[in-house]
Order: sequence, then structure tokens, then C-alpha cells
Amino acid sequence: MSTGMRVGELSRVSNESVSTIKYYLREGLLHRGEQSAPNQAAYDESHVRRLRLIRVLTDVGGLAVADVREVLDAISDETLSLHELLGVAHHALGPARAAPGDDVERAREEVDRFVESLGWDVTPDAPARSGLAEALAALRRSGLDLGTAVFERYAKTADRLAAWEIGFIPESPRRTAVEAALVGTVVFEAALVALRRLALEHHSARRFKQPRRRATRGGRASRAKT
Amino acid sequence: MSTGMRVGELSRVSNESVSTIKYYLREGLLHRGEQSAPNQAAYDESHVRRLRLIRVLTDVGGLAVADVREVLDAISDETLSLHELLGVAHHALGPARAAPGDDVERAREEVDRFVESLGWDVTPDAPARSGLAEALAALRRSGLDLGTAVFERYAKTADRLAAWEIGFIPESPRRTAVEAALVGTVVFEAALVALRRLALEHHSARRFKQPRRRATRGGRASRAKT
Repeated sequence: MSTGMRVGELSRVSNESVSTIKYYLREGLLHRGEQSAPNQAAYDESHVRRLRLIRVLTDVGGLAVADVREVLDAISDETLSLHELLGVAHHALGPARAAPGDDVERAREEVDRFVESLGWDVTPDAPARSGLAEALAALRRSGLDLGTAVFERYAKTADRLAAWEIGFIPESPRRTAVEAALVGTVVFEAALVALRRLALEHHSARRFKQPRRRATRGGRASRAKT
Repeated sequence: MSTGMRVGELSRVSNESVSTIKYYLREGLLHRGEQSAPNQAAYDESHVRRLRLIRVLTDVGGLAVADVREVLDAISDETLSLHELLGVAHHALGPARAAPGDDVERAREEVDRFVESLGWDVTPDAPARSGLAEALAALRRSGLDLGTAVFERYAKTADRLAAWEIGFIPESPRRTAVEAALVGTVVFEAALVALRRLALEHHSARRFKQPRRRATRGGRASRAKT
């Protein structure tokens, strides 16, 4: 994986199609290779790394190309601290879903007070505030009105996990730190979501599974149809 | 909110547009109202509740209409236990993202061993297994190859949260239990994701934020340039 790969080799090494690579080049997500001959560019390890990062941001993070570009621009801007860069990434990730409404706005005020009560140093426009407000409003709409108190356990848990995750980021070099921070933000979120769902299934099985109906596992949807 | 609402009133109470309600009626997501006159149907509280549930599943859970229908069909099938119903919901939620590939398949085998080592009672085709495998493969692609051991902390956390959440579901009546289980699965996931992002920002601030050109903490990148 030394210097001087042609685009076909870059494609093989990175596992991205040549057309995807060319698209990223056109869109400015991937920096141009070194011109090695007329109409021929040489790519190197930095291109492979960049492609991997784009892949994580789009596939695992679900970012649109425009949002990926915003994050990549922030990476290129070396005046930004790692903290500022993570802020850009969080804005690109956005709130989990968009569900505006009066009740979400009211919930948002409660969320702001809740975040303040936690003593968390979070910008006022952090999109995750809206994400939490939407969750609170959704609970309320569903008749499960428990206020932000219901999130206290989750907040403590999130606090512990985040402290550990941020501590995990290497100090330097900047490129490594940036990549670890971005990949970690996106990938551990996906992992946590997956693990919670698996654990829910496990505890649901322990509490609700009917022992005598073992055989019907997985046959739910099809049984209902036949 | 007694019996006998016209569609306009149902719209006002549920905060869904009349055209959305009619769409759900056509698609069979919402049960027909009682025919109160030719060309006129009367809706009741059950329609309001159903609309709220659809809203949570689509807005917070991000489910497509076809997936919502699958979940709603499972609710109607009273032979399904709550555990089986949750299984249907988890299948509808699917893996966080789809990113197939050889490395994901290899990761999937590791994930299966990991889940077994946790002693979790989870169906072999639970989509969250793939979600976790994708996260593991993404970490590996990014050069952060730590194996499933890196997820142990998250698994323990998820296990604690899930035990609490499942314990929170009322035993009966079935309708209440079902709604609490579905809403909880979707909403607390969104809340946990939002809280983790907020906590990450907080801990990133503590570790990396540059305190107005003063101490050395976090000042690496920009100081190196100036």
C-alpha cells in the first residue's frame, strides 16, 4: 500500500468501486491524487484512510454526502480544536428524527433545564437537545408523561460511557485523534443501539416468553398471513 | 374525546392532517370508524391511540409504512405473546444500517460467539446481531481492531438498562403493555442516543475545549501552527 496506486488499485484496496471514487473526487470529498502522467493520478495511503472514514460516516452514521463534506472540511481546517470538530460532526449527525410541533418546543425547554441540572457543558444549539426533546414529547403523546426524571438513569449511564469513550481518544497526532473521535462517535452509537436491542430481547424472553410455545419462534409474520 | 368524532375532530385531537388519516385508512394502518351515516364514519379513542402509536413508530423509530403495518398486524394477532410481538418490532426496526460484505459476515460470527458468551437468549436472526457486526467491521476497517471485547462495557450497560426497561412494562391489559413496550423500545433508544451525544460533547469539552487562550490543555493543534 505504498505511494503510487492507480485508481483501480485504490478501488481494490479500499473496497470502493472506481465510480464511487470518481464521484467522491468530483464532489471534493476525496483529495486529488498526485499527477503522475497526463490523465493519470497516483493515490496513496491517505486516500485509503479518507475512503474508510467516508464509509463509516455514510454507512454507519447515515450521513448524506453534503454532511460528510462538512465534516471533512472541518477536518481540513487545522485551526479547529478536536472539540470544535466533534461539534461539527454532531451537527452533521443531527437529531435522530425531525418531528416539530408545539409540544416538542415545550419539551425542549424542559430538556434545557434538565441538561443544566446535569451540569453538562453543551452548546445551546446542540442537535441532540432536540433529539431528546422529541423523545420526551413522544412519550407524553403516548400517555407516558413522566417528565425528564425518566431520563436520569440514562443520563448517568451516558455520562459514564462518554467519559470512557472520550478518554479513549489518543492525544496525537491530530489525524489519528480526529479519526478515532469520529469513528468512535458513530460506531459506538450503532453498537450501543444494537446491544440494547439484543438485551431487550433477552430480558423480554426472561419475563414474557411462553415456555410451551418455543417452536413458533420467527414464524410470527408468516403465521399471521397463512 | 368520547365516541363519535368526525374525521375533522380526530384530526384536531390527534394532530394529524385529514389527508394523513385518510391515507392510513386506505393503507389499513388505521381501523375504519363506525359507519354513523352514509359516507360518514365515527372515530373514537382507539383511533387516537393508534394514530399516536403510528406517529412514534414512524417519527421516532423511523419505520416505513410497510414496517409499521407489520407491527400493527402483530398487535392485532392476540395469539402472539408480548415477547413475540417485540420480536416483530425488532425485525421492523432492522439493523441500524445495511453494509454487507465479507468482513461483516466474519464479524457476524464473532458477534454470535459474543452474544452466546453473554448468555443472552436472543433469536439467531435478530437484526441487531447484524447491526453489531456492522459496527465491529467498521471499527476494523478503520484500523481500530479490538475484537468484541471492546463492546463488553456497552453490553453490561445495555443489560442493566434493558432489565430496568422491561421491568417497567405493565403486565396488563395487553393493549397497555404492548404500547408501553413498543413506545419504550423506540423512544428510549432515541433518548439514549441523544443523551450519549450530549455527554460526549460535555466530556469532549472537559478534555479538549480550549480555555480562551490560557492553559495548555487542548491547545495542541492551533498552537502548533502559530
